[in-house]
Amino acid sequence: MATINDHFLKLTAGYLFPEIGRRVGAFQKANPDAPVIKLGIGDVTEPLPPAIVQAMHDAIDEQATRDQFHGYGPEQGYDFLRNAIAKTDYQDRNCNVSPDEIFISDGAKCDTGNFLDILGKGNVIAVTDPVYPVYVDTNVMAGNTGPANEQGEYEGLVYLPMTDENNFAPSLPDQKVDVIYLCSPNNPTGAVMSREALTQWVQYAKQNNSIILFDAAYAAFITDDSLPRSIYEIEGAREVAIESRSFSKNAGFTGMRCGFLVVPKELTGKASDGTDVSLHQLWNRRHCTKFNGASYVVQRGAAAVYSKAGQQQTRQLVECYMENASIVRATLKELGFAVYGGENAPYVWLKTPDRLPSWDFFDQLLANCHIVGTPGSGFGASGEGYFRISAFNSRENINEAMARLKKQFKTV
Amino acid sequence: MATINDHFLKLTAGYLFPEIGRRVGAFQKANPDAPVIKLGIGDVTEPLPPAIVQAMHDAIDEQATRDQFHGYGPEQGYDFLRNAIAKTDYQDRNCNVSPDEIFISDGAKCDTGNFLDILGKGNVIAVTDPVYPVYVDTNVMAGNTGPANEQGEYEGLVYLPMTDENNFAPSLPDQKVDVIYLCSPNNPTGAVMSREALTQWVQYAKQNNSIILFDAAYAAFITDDSLPRSIYEIEGAREVAIESRSFSKNAGFTGMRCGFLVVPKELTGKASDGTDVSLHQLWNRRHCTKFNGASYVVQRGAAAVYSKAGQQQTRQLVECYMENASIVRATLKELGFAVYGGENAPYVWLKTPDRLPSWDFFDQLLANCHIVGTPGSGFGASGEGYFRISAFNSRENINEAMARLKKQFKTV
Repeated sequence: MATINDHFLKLTAGYLFPEIGRRVGAFQKANPDAPVIKLGIGDVTEPLPPAIVQAMHDAIDEQATRDQFHGYGPEQGYDFLRNAIAKTDYQDRNCNVSPDEIFISDGAKCDTGNFLDILGKGNVIAVTDPVYPVYVDTNVMAGNTGPANEQGEYEGLVYLPMTDENNFAPSLPDQKVDVIYLCSPNNPTGAVMSREALTQWVQYAKQNNSIILFDAAYAAFITDDSLPRSIYEIEGAREVAIESRSFSKNAGFTGMRCGFLVVPKELTGKASDGTDVSLHQLWNRRHCTKFNGASYVVQRGAAAVYSKAGQQQTRQLVECYMENASIVRATLKELGFAVYGGENAPYVWLKTPDRLPSWDFFDQLLANCHIVGTPGSGFGASGEGYFRISAFNSRENINEAMARLKKQFKTV
Repeated sequence: MATINDHFLKLTAGYLFPEIGRRVGAFQKANPDAPVIKLGIGDVTEPLPPAIVQAMHDAIDEQATRDQFHGYGPEQGYDFLRNAIAKTDYQDRNCNVSPDEIFISDGAKCDTGNFLDILGKGNVIAVTDPVYPVYVDTNVMAGNTGPANEQGEYEGLVYLPMTDENNFAPSLPDQKVDVIYLCSPNNPTGAVMSREALTQWVQYAKQNNSIILFDAAYAAFITDDSLPRSIYEIEGAREVAIESRSFSKNAGFTGMRCGFLVVPKELTGKASDGTDVSLHQLWNRRHCTKFNGASYVVQRGAAAVYSKAGQQQTRQLVECYMENASIVRATLKELGFAVYGGENAPYVWLKTPDRLPSWDFFDQLLANCHIVGTPGSGFGASGEGYFRISAFNSRENINEAMARLKKQFKTV
């Protein structure tokens, strides 16, 4: 009699974004003419940069000839891409990361979930609150939590609040934790960890033999040069941290699918007999056995990000979205909202008027302004009363959305 | 103190194909001028068919404009592809499979490994022997086995021998098993299950509340119309079976990455409280949480397989490889080898001369003929003394390889 993974039954409601999709779908069905503007899910809208388009066309032409055809590639990714990443994202920024520590994948979401495959049961997991739901849900599925309480908090998980009360800088846990998820620039709050804060976390992890899963998917959006873009800018991080990145947001790859995970060779975990085991070796084995490499055409596109033209064009893309964020911030401030983020991140995080529950604000904004945002409570109990506005849209739509907000929330 | 998944430490040696890669790499380094022909890993060599190439170019052009840009797609895959698969691969062949039971992925290898996420611990797993190593290794990683013995057999796994003694038709297990992996046309033996045999398996699964994971990655290579291409041709299969398929071999997608898993809505597994839980719902949740859809461009390419031109061109591709298989079969028979498979599958399975150990035959063939095949023992203990030759190569290389075999093994 085949049994199922009971841990799945602990998952509360649907995953956040499908739930948003459901509500928006129902609204659009009832109001087919309402011009809905989607600032909810952090999905890019601008076309792929020309250098990437050209590289992908060229790659397809290669696949159309026997002499240049590429079948199975290395599971870990092609050297042309691993080398480019190591040099541009790390070595040129004085981070010690070698190409063979970079594992190319079809996206950061997959990596952060799949990484749990190589970790043991019984690890104590810490997440910030609010948090990208995938960290939590994948730990629930893996059996690293108990059931959820009424606030949707899972037993056994250590939640580290990030609110305006601590200036969105989560405190070190007051107990020993084994695995820590940190995301900076932060999704959803738009906060960025300072070098000092990140150094404290690395020291904590060293002292407690913890592993940090550092999500740097939004690194390209940092405009303040004093802020760390990679955890490997911090001394000692190679012994305690893996880092996840994505081409989704900086290069418009949400539909293309490419990301990568950095797993330094120094990093170890404990086997049950107490020996130290290389996580790089375990991840390599996992990657080779359960994955077959990212698409060749997509990897060629990702590599074009690192060409001279690609660097310039993706920078323009990022600047375009950051200008949107700046417009959203300014408008919301003008309307009297308490506003956070949006300066080194493509997300603006606001407090709902009169601490209105997040989903109520979601429904009101959809009904009255035909704008889709993301309810803060969808990211965790401490997100209740907050709301995320994504800067990923065309300038035209951002301007139109801001005009609607001004009309709705005009203070005079 | 972060712990690792100890089950990984049970895995014996490297995964088969990386080990082959290592030996071939060492040989080529020592013999840089040796013209090695690779008939080992089942990797396609012929260019992508023109209809697919055109569809992918068109998809990239869409991504280059704001109006036609596609960001995140549905995690389950685009309707244009799910509908085409449901109609052509299933409904037109009188199989009851609906589009929303088809989950598009980046490959069948990922699907077969990831599917274990939704199953419970303690299930008794049956695999054929020899077998595609991913089925075994992913179960080891998931903790569904004990350690390996000297023959590389894992404690707790139920091995079902497939040898010339049973005409490569594995017997039903003489104990209750919960999950059964079947692959037809079979990798590595090239054997195909008859309708009668598959019916017996479906009945066994119904009687024992087992789940069959049916791997039909090579369905397109069946030339005998009396043989089932899908397990859903068998009555009752929707209650017991999931089916995995891939575009890798029929459409040349090993480097493109696209496959799919069919999970019928009738299929359930038992929760620990004895309730029946829909595997379709669990897999949908897993897919949405740990995966973000296959690349849009790749899905457009896969959909072109189902156009009129795509159907014709992929059929030609399959026929080209099957003609190779026929040439390999004929040559080996002429040379006195005992030969199996290759008639409804792109793999020819041979007995090594004088029951020479498979890896010894591998090394000899590499050294003397500069031909890479796959040692049967790499697929399991019952594969010892067998050897797999893949038909995936150009006609020129196949002819050259056969000329070398004739020279080496000439019987006069």
